[in-house]
Amino acid sequence: MTIDVRFFDYLGQKKLSELIELTGAEPVSAADVNIISIAASDVAGPSDICFIEGHEKATRAVSEQAAACFVSAKMARHLPDGVVPVIVKQPRWAFVQASRALYRVRDWSVGKATYSVHETAILAPGVIIGDGAAIGERVRIGPNTVIGSGVQIGRDTTIGANISIFCALIGDHVTILSGARIGESGFGVTLGPDGAEDIPQLGRVILQDHVTIGANTCIDRGALSDTIIGERTKIDNLCQIAHNCVLGRNVMMASFGGISGSVTVGDGVMMGGRVGIADHVKIGDGARLAASAGVFRDIGAGEAWGGTPAKPLRQHLREVAWLDRQVAARRSDKK
Amino acid sequence: MTIDVRFFDYLGQKKLSELIELTGAEPVSAADVNIISIAASDVAGPSDICFIEGHEKATRAVSEQAAACFVSAKMARHLPDGVVPVIVKQPRWAFVQASRALYRVRDWSVGKATYSVHETAILAPGVIIGDGAAIGERVRIGPNTVIGSGVQIGRDTTIGANISIFCALIGDHVTILSGARIGESGFGVTLGPDGAEDIPQLGRVILQDHVTIGANTCIDRGALSDTIIGERTKIDNLCQIAHNCVLGRNVMMASFGGISGSVTVGDGVMMGGRVGIADHVKIGDGARLAASAGVFRDIGAGEAWGGTPAKPLRQHLREVAWLDRQVAARRSDKK
Amino acid sequence: MTIDVRFFDYLGQKKLSELIELTGAEPVSAADVNIISIAASDVAGPSDICFIEGHEKATRAVSEQAAACFVSAKMARHLPDGVVPVIVKQPRWAFVQASRALYRVRDWSVGKATYSVHETAILAPGVIIGDGAAIGERVRIGPNTVIGSGVQIGRDTTIGANISIFCALIGDHVTILSGARIGESGFGVTLGPDGAEDIPQLGRVILQDHVTIGANTCIDRGALSDTIIGERTKIDNLCQIAHNCVLGRNVMMASFGGISGSVTVGDGVMMGGRVGIADHVKIGDGARLAASAGVFRDIGAGEAWGGTPAKPLRQHLREVAWLDRQVAARRSDKK
Repeated sequence: MTIDVRFFDYLGQKKLSELIELTGAEPVSAADVNIISIAASDVAGPSDICFIEGHEKATRAVSEQAAACFVSAKMARHLPDGVVPVIVKQPRWAFVQASRALYRVRDWSVGKATYSVHETAILAPGVIIGDGAAIGERVRIGPNTVIGSGVQIGRDTTIGANISIFCALIGDHVTILSGARIGESGFGVTLGPDGAEDIPQLGRVILQDHVTIGANTCIDRGALSDTIIGERTKIDNLCQIAHNCVLGRNVMMASFGGISGSVTVGDGVMMGGRVGIADHVKIGDGARLAASAGVFRDIGAGEAWGGTPAKPLRQHLREVAWLDRQVAARRSDKK
Repeated sequence: MTIDVRFFDYLGQKKLSELIELTGAEPVSAADVNIISIAASDVAGPSDICFIEGHEKATRAVSEQAAACFVSAKMARHLPDGVVPVIVKQPRWAFVQASRALYRVRDWSVGKATYSVHETAILAPGVIIGDGAAIGERVRIGPNTVIGSGVQIGRDTTIGANISIFCALIGDHVTILSGARIGESGFGVTLGPDGAEDIPQLGRVILQDHVTIGANTCIDRGALSDTIIGERTKIDNLCQIAHNCVLGRNVMMASFGGISGSVTVGDGVMMGGRVGIADHVKIGDGARLAASAGVFRDIGAGEAWGGTPAKPLRQHLREVAWLDRQVAARRSDKK
Repeated sequence: MTIDVRFFDYLGQKKLSELIELTGAEPVSAADVNIISIAASDVAGPSDICFIEGHEKATRAVSEQAAACFVSAKMARHLPDGVVPVIVKQPRWAFVQASRALYRVRDWSVGKATYSVHETAILAPGVIIGDGAAIGERVRIGPNTVIGSGVQIGRDTTIGANISIFCALIGDHVTILSGARIGESGFGVTLGPDGAEDIPQLGRVILQDHVTIGANTCIDRGALSDTIIGERTKIDNLCQIAHNCVLGRNVMMASFGGISGSVTVGDGVMMGGRVGIADHVKIGDGARLAASAGVFRDIGAGEAWGGTPAKPLRQHLREVAWLDRQVAARRSDKK
């Protein structure tokens, strides 16, 4: 993915040698190579640096086009030919340092924001708009809401009070209720020499047309890709959608729903209250997740699941009923 | 219920024929009837239009006084005599269109808000107050908080920072902590010809005297009735109370509590952390719900329940203990 | 603990007789004693009043140095010699009245705030800063954020939009995401003659260096001690940390984590999403809590627990698998 400079300042290309110095990696012969950007290992291009961790099999996911790759000594020889291995003890942490050397979230423009607001849009008092933002026809924005630098908002969208929106593209006829947090930095932590460290999040949030986002709900921006909410998807209050999630159209998600990172949710999925989904899980079109379901594996299209850990709903209900009978029976034995 | 024009603009009465045109319903002979308002089917009066969906039995809940009722072809003949059936494929969706034709949430008044603040009230910097709001004696409001149009706040009430309050009547000696969202639109979705669509929420929130609302907690306004929090009820941080709920007095609700739509909670009910209650459930006076209970059925006065799905607490604890013994026994068998 | 006058106004010492009159307690001969402050019973000093409730054994926890102690008639004779028993029906409620007579949260300074902002700090538009606050080098604060009176913020700390921070000391290199609520009043309720009443919360929040706090997360200030988040601890969005909790270093806490009052969490503890911990529980260093765990007892260092109520993770997984087999077997019997 190209990192969107409407939201992130590009700090200029670096020599590979500079990144090596920054990360304490072992010297390489190709130190003069220019590194223009960072990328996930499977999509890295000829001027990108990436990283790889885990089992040796993971090295298969490194693009043959990548310029260089942070990697442990043990895994280095498994990289594709032509990718410069940059050997370092903590490859993910090294990648974080490279990210920081190349990009920075745009700072708030003090006293010099230039943005565009359509003449039919209505901004309440206290609305603050960042540099390069654009607000479309008939948009209404409630008091004390913050629209970050570069944010684009379509037509006929209604935004409540005390909301913050950063690093996001918002469609037409979207509704966002008060206190929602769109485009905050997702929860990504790596261990470095000094302990836990946040991983920069350089993706965006995309809310398609007719999406509704509930009060105090959080939709994190992607790490190296986008978090996308499909058309007419409706999300209740106090929900959490982590980085890189892709939700389809007409998804219904009740209060306290929590979707971990990189989850895919198909069209028309229905979620009761307090549903949780573990990271990287895929939920098929039209699946139904009962209230309080805790989902740790992929679910096929049209299936109904419930319980924690979630099972097919009929099996879950059978277990609940069976357990009930066992204990009731034993109790009457004692009488 | 009468819709409170302090919070919603009335767009003027409509001919039934106009609403029929708007919704694609079948023509009726009584097309000239004036429709003044909308109402729930059981309380609709002689100038109201309502709707009915579901089984034929549901038609019994239509008031004989209703002027007209959106209804499917199949159910139309079961309506009371004198109620004009307006036949349409998606009655709820049609009702939504009628709601929109008759009422609209009051827009933020730009540059012309007239409101009343008692001389003893203290407003911090950044407080924004809507048209027609009234703030009572010795009220204190924290920085960047938003008080919507028409909101009424009693005496000696303390309101924190970055809060938004809309469509609400707030009593005396109420405490609202920072980031709370009072009176946002509840989560109501209907399917229309283009997919999922939000249902307008035209009710209010009423917080009685001495209520406390925690930080970042959300209390949605009612759909066609009010959401009411009774005297001295205390609600912790990050709770969700959906539209039309009625909570009694001295209710205690710990963090992450979630109450779905149209739930009734009696006086003195105690809820541990992360309790969830399904919609339309009734909880009797003095009931106790253990932490993490997921309640899907009515609970009698004074009872203690726990688990998900919740059961009487003693039974739940017996099940937990029994399951523990079964697996422990089997494990020692293997040794 | 000494109550921090940067955050709370001291209303001046009181005669014990004044506090007796305020609470309806029984008269004492030592009515002339000066009460300078309040304290928890085990640390109360020679000018402090405290309270005690519960079983007679609880009286052992009263410091021999305490000036006076609100206590029930039944327990009064068990107090240490030299501590004046102040006999009252509802000792906790009486203590709350004494707290209110001695301290009050600092009101927002209207039009006269004096604070210090380092010249290298960047404040976005709409930031509001209270009297006596201090903002360090290179701190960045996002739009419409509120920094309460007396709050101290270290160097290189980044604070997002629409945040509120009260009664807190914030370290260096801290990151706080939008909508977080730091230092709100914790959830403490006592029953008084008129029903439920909030207990004043007179402690602070301390965020150590390199801490990250997620969007819309709430960290309550302590009641009579501090809520402390250790160095490099990373907390996701929509979490709740109640009063008096002490978290160690490098703790990881995923979304919807909820920690009840006075919990201790050791260094390096890992919590999956939606983990809940009951009040006063202690979690040892390096423990791991699986997603959705509901923890009601202490957990040793390095242990892994899961389920609700939480058990050692292997036992929990065995139970889940066993239940699965039982019901699957019975189902195939029926075929």
